[in-house]
Parts: sequence; C-alpha cells; structure tokens
Amino acid sequence: MDRDLSTKRIEKDLECLKQFTATPGNGCTRMPFTKETRDAAEYLKGAMRKAGLEVREDNVGNIFGVLPGKDRSKPCIMVGSHYDSVYNGGDYDGIAGVVSGIELARILKDAGENLEADYIVAAFMDEEGCRFGTGYFGSKSMLGQMTVEECKHFTDKDDISVYEAMKSYGLIPENIANAAWDTSRIGHYIELHIEQGPVLDQKKIELGLVDCIVGIQRYMVTVNGRSDHAGTTPMDMRMDAVDMASKVICHVADLARAEENGTVATVGYITSVPGGMNVVAQSASFSVDIRSKKNEIINKIAAELRRLLDEETKKGKGTYTIDTKLVITPVNMSGNMLDIMEDSCKEHGYSYLRMPSGAGHDALAIGQVKDTVMLFVPSKDGRSHCPEEYTPYDDFSKAVEVLNDLIHKLA
Amino acid sequence: MDRDLSTKRIEKDLECLKQFTATPGNGCTRMPFTKETRDAAEYLKGAMRKAGLEVREDNVGNIFGVLPGKDRSKPCIMVGSHYDSVYNGGDYDGIAGVVSGIELARILKDAGENLEADYIVAAFMDEEGCRFGTGYFGSKSMLGQMTVEECKHFTDKDDISVYEAMKSYGLIPENIANAAWDTSRIGHYIELHIEQGPVLDQKKIELGLVDCIVGIQRYMVTVNGRSDHAGTTPMDMRMDAVDMASKVICHVADLARAEENGTVATVGYITSVPGGMNVVAQSASFSVDIRSKKNEIINKIAAELRRLLDEETKKGKGTYTIDTKLVITPVNMSGNMLDIMEDSCKEHGYSYLRMPSGAGHDALAIGQVKDTVMLFVPSKDGRSHCPEEYTPYDDFSKAVEVLNDLIHKLA
Repeated sequence: MDRDLSTKRIEKDLECLKQFTATPGNGCTRMPFTKETRDAAEYLKGAMRKAGLEVREDNVGNIFGVLPGKDRSKPCIMVGSHYDSVYNGGDYDGIAGVVSGIELARILKDAGENLEADYIVAAFMDEEGCRFGTGYFGSKSMLGQMTVEECKHFTDKDDISVYEAMKSYGLIPENIANAAWDTSRIGHYIELHIEQGPVLDQKKIELGLVDCIVGIQRYMVTVNGRSDHAGTTPMDMRMDAVDMASKVICHVADLARAEENGTVATVGYITSVPGGMNVVAQSASFSVDIRSKKNEIINKIAAELRRLLDEETKKGKGTYTIDTKLVITPVNMSGNMLDIMEDSCKEHGYSYLRMPSGAGHDALAIGQVKDTVMLFVPSKDGRSHCPEEYTPYDDFSKAVEVLNDLIHKLA
Repeated sequence: MDRDLSTKRIEKDLECLKQFTATPGNGCTRMPFTKETRDAAEYLKGAMRKAGLEVREDNVGNIFGVLPGKDRSKPCIMVGSHYDSVYNGGDYDGIAGVVSGIELARILKDAGENLEADYIVAAFMDEEGCRFGTGYFGSKSMLGQMTVEECKHFTDKDDISVYEAMKSYGLIPENIANAAWDTSRIGHYIELHIEQGPVLDQKKIELGLVDCIVGIQRYMVTVNGRSDHAGTTPMDMRMDAVDMASKVICHVADLARAEENGTVATVGYITSVPGGMNVVAQSASFSVDIRSKKNEIINKIAAELRRLLDEETKKGKGTYTIDTKLVITPVNMSGNMLDIMEDSCKEHGYSYLRMPSGAGHDALAIGQVKDTVMLFVPSKDGRSHCPEEYTPYDDFSKAVEVLNDLIHKLA
C-alpha cells in the first residue's frame, strides 16, 4: 500500500467531517440524531460508496459498508468505531476509526482484491452517550441489546427521549429489533481509536496493541458526621465528616499505585455539606472510580475502600453510605489478533506497546460476545474529549497498514 | 436577690423579644437596621426605663441604659451584648445578655441602691455581621473604630450598603464618629452569653468563666494539579489535585488534637474542579479554620499546614495557593474579674469551669482595649445559630446572681 496516499485520503475525510459540528470553532459537538450526525452519515455513505462498498443505514442510524467476500457464508471481518462525539470534543475520537476502515476498503479496491469473507466498515451511532446518558447505543443495538422501552426511558436535557429523537430523525424506534444482527455473522471486530491518554505520546511509541479493556467499578460515598460550630465544639466532641472522609480519600490513589501497571483509582468529585468555613461538616461526599485489567484487583481495592470507611467512621463516630454507580468487568482482546498485529508491527518497524484501554469503546460491548481487538494511535499530550485533541494523519495510515496485514491474515 | 423573680422577669423579656423576628416559626431573624431591630430596640428601651435607667440610642443603633453612680467621674461598669441575630438563629444568642443586664438593673433598683460608678446596660447593633459581612459593628463604633467609608463599602445581598440602611433607619452615617466614646469612661465590660457549644451541657456544669476568647486564623487553600481522563491516564503520569489535597486535609484535625485542650482546627469547605467522577481533578480547594487560646499554637499549626502543602504538592507534582481570610489574635479576659466570679460561684454552690470562648463576641472587640470578662450559660446540646437554640431561663438568673456579686465587688 501507498502510505502517503492513505495519509492524504484520511486527512481529506477527517478535514471534511470536522465541519459537521454544532459548535464550529469550539471543537466537535455531534450529538446523536441531529443535523450533524445526518451530515456526517451522508458524507460517510458517499465515501463508502466511492470505495466500492455496498452501503446500508440501519434502523438506529448505524452505517455499514460491505465489500463482499469470495465466500459470503463466512463470518465477516468488521472494522469500525462511532461517528458521534462528546460536547466540544475532538475531531478524531471515534470518527478516525471509521475513516480508517474506509481507507482500508479503498486499499482493497485499489489492489482489486476481495477477501475470503465479507469486509465490513461499521460507523456506530451514539457511543458516547452524552445526549441521553446511554452509551454504546449503536453497537448494542447491533447486538440486539437495546429495546424500545429503553428508547422511551432515556431523555436528553430538553426531555426529548431517544424514542422521540429517532422518530424526528426518520427512524422507527418500534422496529429497533431490526437493527440486531445474527451475531454468528460477525467473525472479528477490529477498532482503531486514538489512545485518549498520554502513554504512547509520552513514551514516543507509534502503536498501542490493546490487550484488554479495563473493568470499572464506580462508587459515590457519603460520610455522615454532625454539623457543629467550628469554634465552640472541642475536638473530642465532634463528628467531623471531612476529617473522616479525607482519612479514606488519601489512600485511594495509593491503593492503585500499589497494584500492577495499569490499575488506576480516582476521587474526582468531592464536596462537603453545609460547606461553611466555620462549620464542622455534617457530611462529605466523594466519587471513587477504580479501573483495572483484573477484576480481582478492582474487587480488592473496593473491599479496602469499604474497610477504610468502616475503620475511619468508627474512629470518628460517624456513618457512611456507598452507592454503586457502575460495574463493568474487564474484557480481554483477542490474543490471536494481537499476535498478528505484533508481527506486523515488527515487520514494518513500528514501535508498539501492549496496553490496556482505560476508557470504554464500542469494542467493550462487542468484545463481550465476539472476537475483538483494538489498535491505538497516540493522542498528543494525552488530550481527548476537548478541541485540543490531536493525532498526526500519518499515525492513522501506519495503523491502517497494520490492520491491512491483520485482515489479510484473518481471511 | 430573689432568683425566682429574676427568672420570671428574664423569661417575660425573652418571650416578648422572640416575637421580633422576620421568620416567625422558623427561628430568630433580626437583621440590623430593619423593622425587627427597631421593634426590639423599642422594647429594650421600655424595659430599661422601667428598670429606672436613663436611656439613650446612639448614632449606630446601640442602646445604653444608665444607672448613675454615686461618683459619676468614675469609669463605668458596662454589662451588655448584642440584639441582632443570624438568619434563622435562636432566641438567646446576644439578646439574653442584654436582658440579663437589665435584670441586674432591676435588682439594683429593687434594693434601692446605686453603685459607686455608673452601671450601664449596653445593647449593641449588628454583632453577627450576617447582613453586611461586617461584625462587631456596634461595639466597634462605640470604640471609635468604624468610619463612614466602611459604611459605604459593606453591602447586603440586595446591594444596600450599611450607609444606606442606616439612613433608611433614621440614622446619620456621616455622624458615625459621634457614636465613639471616650473609652477612659469604660472601667469594665462584662458580657453574659450562651456558650454556643456543648461543653457545659455535656459536662453538666452550670457556669462557664471565660478566661480567653480564642484567636483565629482562617485560610482558603487551592491545590493545583492537572485535569486528566480517570481511565486512560496511568497513576505515574497524573497530577491529582484531590489526592494531594486529601493527604494534607487528613492531618488538619489531628494537628489540633495534638495540642492542649481547646485548640481546634476544621476543614469545613472542600470542592474539586471540574468535579467529574471520571476526571482526575485539576484543582481542589478547601478552607482551614484554626483556633486556640495561644497564638503560638495557631502559628505552629498554620506553619505545619504550609509544610504539608509543600511536601505533598512536591510529591504530587502540583502547586498550591494559600489565601489568608482572617487573623484574630487571642484576647485574655480579666483575671481579677474571673477570680471574683469564681469566688461567687463557690459561695452560691454553682459548678463552674474556666474555659475559652471559641466564638467571637462584642467582648472580643472591647476586650482588646478594656478590662473585660465573659460568663457563659449552657447551650442545650451545644446547639446555636439555629431555631433549636435553648437555655433554661433559670440558668440566666444564676448567672445574674454571679454578675450581681461581681459588680458589687468591682464598685
């Protein structure tokens, strides 16, 4: 393949697609079922058709471009990602994986070859979940995991449900089951994505071979004490919620640091009530987000969190509540596909790193049921979900080169 | 004196005065320069006149009732407190000290005696500072420490300045200097107040002899890190502001616990930015309020706070700012008056405790320049600045009995 040509074609697609934003000049805002997704969808369909693909938009707004295989009864190779964004996000998150999949189709077309199995480029609707609080909506619909009831349940900030938004978009939510595939038709799912973290950029490594999408446990903790005058209440007569909470929080990051590389733990949100400078806090609430490749490590940290809460609230004469917000078990990527990509990297002389994905992706949903792999390209300074998100176009064509090897080895 | 009679008269006054609130049924809200302070002032002036006092309202709304001494050239004995409240406060904070001072005047009148020096009951305007963010406004004006410029500077939530509020109230702010006394005329200042803390109530002690009004240093600290994705940023590439801040906060209360009885330290306010559950915090801000009888202890804890901030932000690769919000040095009460009150307690068989005041009072402002003492009565469950604030009326008449002894010994 001609990498310079690939770089130029990927650049052209991404430069065109970045115009489909509700916030021009302030990053990409491409919410599901809006003019911006419609415009992007039409662009993608056009590009797929030009690449020689048979194009289909399904009943939830997913777009599929098919290059028929020599033996159409074989399970397909699917390469894809999503084409929605977060609010004021970047121009690469998701969409670059779709564009790279289309470029791979062009390479196949240029070479005049069809694979043994169908090669399918997938562009999923609403992975981010920003508008409705959903997440993996398109890929889950493909997997038959979304219902019309859920479409009615989830609403945006203007109280418009997914159901209503789909109707306005020209879709028939009652027929959502039609978006579901016979998943035996999917042989392999491959997702190219920007890293959204600093590892590759900082270590100057060209490609990340994602061996696992980490599991997540997320909690909201409230430590309860008693509100007292900060001047007139002696230390031994207090139930200071901030004091108790801080004696737990100060260990959270260290619990992750004590584990193997890749485990992370974060208290991102913290607040106190009533929050007066001269009032002992009645309560302190904080979030805990724990992620690891190994579920037992997540469980171990969560257990230690509870033990610390028991201990400190006992010492401080308080109580606590802990509310589970999210539980996702880790999903291992295909060892076979990783080995093939590793060989390819060596062949091309690309530096690479086997690494976990700390963020969720469509590959998380699909990887739970199908043979899946992800390939990361570096994110400059690790920035993502912001207008500053950036990856040089040439980095994508390097990844496409590896994916080209991969799909040939698989087929 | 007849304690039962005193209890009844104190009860009558406090029951009447509690009606002068802007929030009937939800505690006392008596903001300076409002209908409520006007109504309370008129009631107090009436009660003072009935007690045989010469009554005067000064140019900032302070009310003075004078029982002339036999030798009017002698410095007076002043007994007082404030008659404003916080929002939705209690019916005893401040006003009970004024009412008790009037009761003491009645006792003198009943006994048909005048002291050697003038006996003066003072009811100060705006000690709480809730409306304008001032504090000790009336007593500071008496001491000649307030200016017309300050009256113009401080405004309430509706942007009405003290200056404007005074005018609407019928006062002439330009003449604020007229409220200032020749302070050589004040011999002793005595303030009876509810404790506003749990010590006396919990220890079942009848009276608190306040030996010191504690000093305060109050800071707002911001620890700065960097906002990163909580999933994709490895622990060793983070600058986690909450992690750094919590490793400082968890020591703050313990620093006070390690000092002598009475030292307190409180982190009442804490917040993180941006505050997302899946985002490493860019910054974490928190308040630190340190109080002690000994200024060197406050300085020591503040120095240790800065040392911890240096250490933890260095470890965590962050930075911090520390903003001084309040510095008050401790004010010692009159040893002579404390000794007299202690003797009186022993004589009457009242249990007592020499203790600090952890909150500020008019006695804090006056005690900086004049011989001052405070006498505390118990606050049920330590509750104050809330509608639940409660002290049995009989507790006040016990205190009045001790004050009666005190003023006779002084005169």
